[in-house]
Amino acid sequence: MCLMHFQRFGDRTEIRFESGDEFIGSLTAFAQAESVTFAVFSGLGGVRSARIAYFNSETREYETHELNEQFEVISLIGNVALRDGKPFVHAHASLGRKDLSVMGGHVMELVARPTIELWLRREAVAVSRVPDDESGLALLDLPERL
Amino acid sequence: MCLMHFQRFGDRTEIRFESGDEFIGSLTAFAQAESVTFAVFSGLGGVRSARIAYFNSETREYETHELNEQFEVISLIGNVALRDGKPFVHAHASLGRKDLSVMGGHVMELVARPTIELWLRREAVAVSRVPDDESGLALLDLPERL
Amino acid sequence: MCLMHFQRFGDRTEIRFESGDEFIGSLTAFAQAESVTFAVFSGLGGVRSARIAYFNSETREYETHELNEQFEVISLIGNVALRDGKPFVHAHASLGRKDLSVMGGHVMELVARPTIELWLRREAVAVSRVPDDESGLALLDLPERL
Repeated sequence: MCLMHFQRFGDRTEIRFESGDEFIGSLTAFAQAESVTFAVFSGLGGVRSARIAYFNSETREYETHELNEQFEVISLIGNVALRDGKPFVHAHASLGRKDLSVMGGHVMELVARPTIELWLRREAVAVSRVPDDESGLALLDLPERL
Repeated sequence: MCLMHFQRFGDRTEIRFESGDEFIGSLTAFAQAESVTFAVFSGLGGVRSARIAYFNSETREYETHELNEQFEVISLIGNVALRDGKPFVHAHASLGRKDLSVMGGHVMELVARPTIELWLRREAVAVSRVPDDESGLALLDLPERL
Repeated sequence: MCLMHFQRFGDRTEIRFESGDEFIGSLTAFAQAESVTFAVFSGLGGVRSARIAYFNSETREYETHELNEQFEVISLIGNVALRDGKPFVHAHASLGRKDLSVMGGHVMELVARPTIELWLRREAVAVSRVPDDESGLALLDLPERL
């Protein structure tokens, strides 16, 4: 499902994900439709479920946990870059529980309830992710060094 | 109390809330004085007390907890939009304790000590919050869809 | 070590810290090399170790903890301002563990693994930190008040 509403302000966009909207899939669809080649974002809201992962640097695998409860999305920080030429969303989130304790990690999936409010800033350049042999991950390919 | 200092850089403003300053009230006062119609922000700092809430999606009520201790404000993410024509602050925070454990949720109140440092970006448009029957909350009214 | 790669987009820069790169030292070196006088940033990534502090408002001292494990960097929010005329990095981070629990606070040190992805926005003005007698900290010197 891709149910978001949004409003553009120049190179910034505010997006409201709806109840039932899955964040990673919907933001990827938005980025494809809008031909986003690089963007950064921050957001907050609530979700009814999440799949959150921890990257195990020894096995070089993501360990993913399914979480089925209503959480506050306390922070949602990330970027959109190109992977194999297509927009790829990288996001980390902290999630607040009923007792105010906090869980979080790498976002595999977030299902909004009632909404996620995301501020996204596009850049008019392309940034790609390229495979990194050491970590097994696709890292941002940035040209300059000190 | 409204004790903040600030500096403008075009459409961005850096705000320093002082010891004793209550974040939601002071930022609302700032937004009214400056006629903010939409803005996003992120910040960090320290607080001596907080009222933090969890939105219970079954009862559709916020459950608010009073927290009286010195916390690091690890993340403070949100926006200012118009509700009934007046600036309304929506913020989520993660708070760090002496043992480095983290609590957080929807911000009802934060009392700074010694400071909260907030970066705010204004947009030259108006975004309003409108009532959502399903959730009972006021959600951002954004015009476009995919 | 200062191993980062970066790309500029006008007044914004995306920085990728490499495995083994220490965040505070490397960002300070970047800010010195680039003559940054004020900037804000947000980021995410992973680290293999961290030194994280809690500011004790009674003793007015930072209590610093050494953490030697692989964490997700869930949020990394802060700014760069001038202290004694030189760029000074102020950052708070939330860190995610293997069991998805979250720790965090004031960042003394973060050693990236495999990367930290940071979005930094520079401003073309100088903001300085000045000593605050009450807290014992150096706070942002901002000229305006409501």
